[in-house]
Amino acid sequence: MITKIDEHTITDAALEQMATTKNARLKEIMDSLVKHLHAFAREVDLTPQEWLDGISFLTAVGQTCTPIRQEFILLSDTLGLSSLVNHLHDRRAIEHGTKTSLLGPFYRQDGPALPLGSRIFSKEEGPEIAIYGKVTDGAGRPLSGATVQIWQTDDEGAYDLQKDASKMDLRGVFQTDSQGNYSLRTLLPMGYMIPMDGPVGDMIRAQGRHGYRPAHIHFLVGKPGYREVVTALYLGNDEHIDSDTVFGVTESLVTSVKANDPESPIPNLPAIQFNFVLAAAGEQGTGRVGADPAQIVKK
Amino acid sequence: MITKIDEHTITDAALEQMATTKNARLKEIMDSLVKHLHAFAREVDLTPQEWLDGISFLTAVGQTCTPIRQEFILLSDTLGLSSLVNHLHDRRAIEHGTKTSLLGPFYRQDGPALPLGSRIFSKEEGPEIAIYGKVTDGAGRPLSGATVQIWQTDDEGAYDLQKDASKMDLRGVFQTDSQGNYSLRTLLPMGYMIPMDGPVGDMIRAQGRHGYRPAHIHFLVGKPGYREVVTALYLGNDEHIDSDTVFGVTESLVTSVKANDPESPIPNLPAIQFNFVLAAAGEQGTGRVGADPAQIVKK
Repeated sequence: MITKIDEHTITDAALEQMATTKNARLKEIMDSLVKHLHAFAREVDLTPQEWLDGISFLTAVGQTCTPIRQEFILLSDTLGLSSLVNHLHDRRAIEHGTKTSLLGPFYRQDGPALPLGSRIFSKEEGPEIAIYGKVTDGAGRPLSGATVQIWQTDDEGAYDLQKDASKMDLRGVFQTDSQGNYSLRTLLPMGYMIPMDGPVGDMIRAQGRHGYRPAHIHFLVGKPGYREVVTALYLGNDEHIDSDTVFGVTESLVTSVKANDPESPIPNLPAIQFNFVLAAAGEQGTGRVGADPAQIVKK
Repeated sequence: MITKIDEHTITDAALEQMATTKNARLKEIMDSLVKHLHAFAREVDLTPQEWLDGISFLTAVGQTCTPIRQEFILLSDTLGLSSLVNHLHDRRAIEHGTKTSLLGPFYRQDGPALPLGSRIFSKEEGPEIAIYGKVTDGAGRPLSGATVQIWQTDDEGAYDLQKDASKMDLRGVFQTDSQGNYSLRTLLPMGYMIPMDGPVGDMIRAQGRHGYRPAHIHFLVGKPGYREVVTALYLGNDEHIDSDTVFGVTESLVTSVKANDPESPIPNLPAIQFNFVLAAAGEQGTGRVGADPAQIVKK
């Protein structure tokens, strides 16, 4: 074997050494990864200095991670990998519900449980809107007692964690009523730039990208027996709606605010109406791309 | 664009966003990387949980790096990528010299300058051997005043840095004589296991690999005007000569110890004879895969 290791046979040599992997799925993943990694290096004829720059970059990405920041997820997001994994996940579902979108790094598990119609923000003034709709199953039947978790930025594009991590704001956990309805009052969120002070920010600048995400509102909707949906609603009039830096936007998740909506259960407020559809839980179980960064870093 | 993002079109969407990259080579590298990364995820139908495990693994690799440990280089080494980059580098050379091999993480720039024939180890007893030969150019002409740097493990498989980083041992910097000759006395090195207490060690165990490198002796040979060679000589009778965990072994670098060598300039010692060939410096300049880990981590 050693007699033949060169830039072509090295891939087979690596696969041969990994052939003893006990877990068949791990073997499948690593075999494919090594083949593609090597094909990449051959395709671009990667030089030792470029390889070294890559090692430095990945090391910096790892060392930028903290209990409240996950730079590797950001890297995956900005290269479109997270979005791809979400789309693959949606496609695998036996029955289709609302499309998923990125969970992002600002999810918190301990959002406050609130009655339907509540305000989820503490700010005294701001562009207030209503969000309402139904949670249904795949056949359109209302689901009562479904959990609707919401979290979002304020009207300046900042999450509570970015302003004062000790205070909970612009988050809420609601339960649908007997007709599957949910409703709440919140601020019209603003889009924002991803964290640009780390190695991923350096990459985004080197690529001449703007680094912005369009304004969006995160939702995690679930009910026992149904496939949990991690998603986000996007505001169609945002200037970056067509160029989300992390590729989270899907057409069916683009919404708009109606200045006057007679259907809204919260009168006298501009409103977004959106119905969530939960598919029956399949064999694949639930899954999310982008989890609590603390969980990942501490693991 | 947003109307069409799915598991197939996401790749084009990512390439489109990166189209503004100013540096043409960076664009070429990132385009290829994203294509192969996405093709990998599609090929194995990567799930959100598997993606999350991958993020956790890469984060741990980054956080294991310290000024004296480079876990990302180790990962690259064990996946065959470093070896591949070396082979691509050798192939690019206009004129061919001695094959390169991995620099590894134990190189130190400040090895002691010693007269030809010197002992490079401090240990009182051990399996002493001689190493000698010539440094020549591609046409076989001797190169006088060439620098021959050597570093290696002791007869128990440990580098000085692993025993006591404050002491320099089993290292030396020699200059060839007017006939291009070098010679020195050292210990017969032992093979060793790569660091197995980090995430790469977890991977190696999960893959059922032994984790050993065959016994070898590192060399860095150079002379102004010639292509610097970072390489290593491997002992052919090592039981892991055919299964080096980091794929550094190349047939032309496999050597053996002669118990009795009448040609050796150092009598009464078993000897390894090896001639190094330096190619003329080409346009590509020198390059090494695997550099001072401190340099990389601190960058």
